[in-house]
Amino acid sequence: MVTELQLGKQSLAFEKPVYVMSSACIVGQKEGEGPLKDTFDEVIEDPTFGKDSWEEGESELMKQTSLLAIRKAKLKTEDIRYLFAGDLLGQLIATTFGLMDFNIPLFGLYGACSTMGEALSLAAMTVHGGYADTVMAVASSHFGSAEKQFRFPLEYGNQRPMSSTWTVTGCGAFVLSKEYGDVMIPGITTGKVVDYGVKDSLNMGACMAPAAADVIYQHLKDFKRQPEDYDRIVTGDLGKIGKEILCKLLKDQGYDISKVHMDCGMEIYDDPEQDTHAGGSGCGCSAVTLAGKLMGELKKGATNRILFVPTGALLSTVSFNEGQSVPGIAHAVVLEKRKNA
Amino acid sequence: MVTELQLGKQSLAFEKPVYVMSSACIVGQKEGEGPLKDTFDEVIEDPTFGKDSWEEGESELMKQTSLLAIRKAKLKTEDIRYLFAGDLLGQLIATTFGLMDFNIPLFGLYGACSTMGEALSLAAMTVHGGYADTVMAVASSHFGSAEKQFRFPLEYGNQRPMSSTWTVTGCGAFVLSKEYGDVMIPGITTGKVVDYGVKDSLNMGACMAPAAADVIYQHLKDFKRQPEDYDRIVTGDLGKIGKEILCKLLKDQGYDISKVHMDCGMEIYDDPEQDTHAGGSGCGCSAVTLAGKLMGELKKGATNRILFVPTGALLSTVSFNEGQSVPGIAHAVVLEKRKNA
Repeated sequence: MVTELQLGKQSLAFEKPVYVMSSACIVGQKEGEGPLKDTFDEVIEDPTFGKDSWEEGESELMKQTSLLAIRKAKLKTEDIRYLFAGDLLGQLIATTFGLMDFNIPLFGLYGACSTMGEALSLAAMTVHGGYADTVMAVASSHFGSAEKQFRFPLEYGNQRPMSSTWTVTGCGAFVLSKEYGDVMIPGITTGKVVDYGVKDSLNMGACMAPAAADVIYQHLKDFKRQPEDYDRIVTGDLGKIGKEILCKLLKDQGYDISKVHMDCGMEIYDDPEQDTHAGGSGCGCSAVTLAGKLMGELKKGATNRILFVPTGALLSTVSFNEGQSVPGIAHAVVLEKRKNA
Repeated sequence: MVTELQLGKQSLAFEKPVYVMSSACIVGQKEGEGPLKDTFDEVIEDPTFGKDSWEEGESELMKQTSLLAIRKAKLKTEDIRYLFAGDLLGQLIATTFGLMDFNIPLFGLYGACSTMGEALSLAAMTVHGGYADTVMAVASSHFGSAEKQFRFPLEYGNQRPMSSTWTVTGCGAFVLSKEYGDVMIPGITTGKVVDYGVKDSLNMGACMAPAAADVIYQHLKDFKRQPEDYDRIVTGDLGKIGKEILCKLLKDQGYDISKVHMDCGMEIYDDPEQDTHAGGSGCGCSAVTLAGKLMGELKKGATNRILFVPTGALLSTVSFNEGQSVPGIAHAVVLEKRKNA
């Protein structure tokens, strides 16, 4: 039985919207030199954030960003009932060590670079369900820790093909509330794993585009909307190659999103000046773009409704070395300017 | 504001219980030779489950177990609205490759060996919230893939200290429903990351016991219950050493759980005959013990109410090699025989 709350097979339309009380984003030096520099709360030039390693640095980044989001909401740590958080590292060590001092019940999540969407979805479901008045959703990535884990340690100095993306050093944190906030989350569409059999881990855009197309298509069907009903449809980190594939796949299914589509991975760096090749990637890419630029636009009323669709490439070095493909997943979250706000 | 649904800082008491429609468990050869052998649905002797690697084998194990749970519920794959699933491997590759053919919206979870509790908690919240009529929660682990990832590949033949545990090759899957099933989930208590600074990754019991003690203490406080209100309080994989620490920590806080405590890690193997040292571990350990033995007891009425508290040790080889401690997390789920069932 599909109620009004449950739309189709994959979507939820909340009877009572959930509000974004505050958002915060902190990034590294390279992101702070890019086109979005004025939208970030803080730019920190030290890549280890005052710690001894990239991993500890990423934990510190998550901690600082989360504290900032709580401060911006004028709350205390103990006001947050649940944390929904994740990162790209094996066994989520950035999250564990970054958020453990908060002493808040934690749901650890892994959705690769779609984690910000997964966290916001579960956080919104939790607030709407009456399980909490205030929760926080957090996702981060770090260039140094990600390269070390997925490709080579930076010291190795390997060459990067032009199709490769640059993992964003950045964290986005969002405090969600049942009452307060200028931006609301009225609905979500949860993604499935989609595998087109692409095996090139240095061409993530191509791996993830089919998953983004799948969840955007389902979303538009479930909500009976057209692309034009959104001021922006925002993917996470498809980059140039993935963007083309996404638009083509959706066009083949009757939806032309080209006029409203924006990819965070293509916005965050200034290419070719910053030499990042196919754009930005990582959980942090979409998380900081949403927390900064996109939330800013919604709050000002420059946009009224956007669809946020971060995209994840599901692989590990083990699965890749064993010859597996790189499937994708994407989760869609609707964000709107609060009515009568 | 704490409503009746929200108990204290960490617990939920569902106004309408959520039901366990079916559970399934498939294990490997060693588990199938242990004391719980008659409680498992299937024992498969091939450690790669017909595939080419341990990782692909673990994926196949997750797939087969999930299909069995769906079949036991007399449902089809498309009847399941959401999957809540996780495993121990970096970037959750067992989950991704095991469950992607199902074409069901997926929330990927990482809670180390507490994942079965995290998955059941979010799955129950989702059904209770009206977001789905039927969902599935799945968690797995595999001795070969886990040793390769966390310690050494099996071919290396390293020695294991007596405090080390043996990762269970096994998967548990649960179909949750808003209406059907003989066992219900009336409440949950969600755990925080707890760090006592233990740095010995081969003594996981000591790392996890403080987290288990913390969440059990909070649970008993929040629900205003005594240990005797449960037929069993079941931890995941503390082993002998962790069990002692847990009972002592809780005794210091005024709760004597020794009469009702059971640890899945101490039940699943026959030591010293099976030479597993400090007992079983891994997400699969508590998942298969719950899906088999404990669900069987509840359905028969041999027990009426249990507290399931799987425990996770939060580390990766990277965090361990960088000298970090091994914090723990545990999530508590109440399971009761259905009233007037």
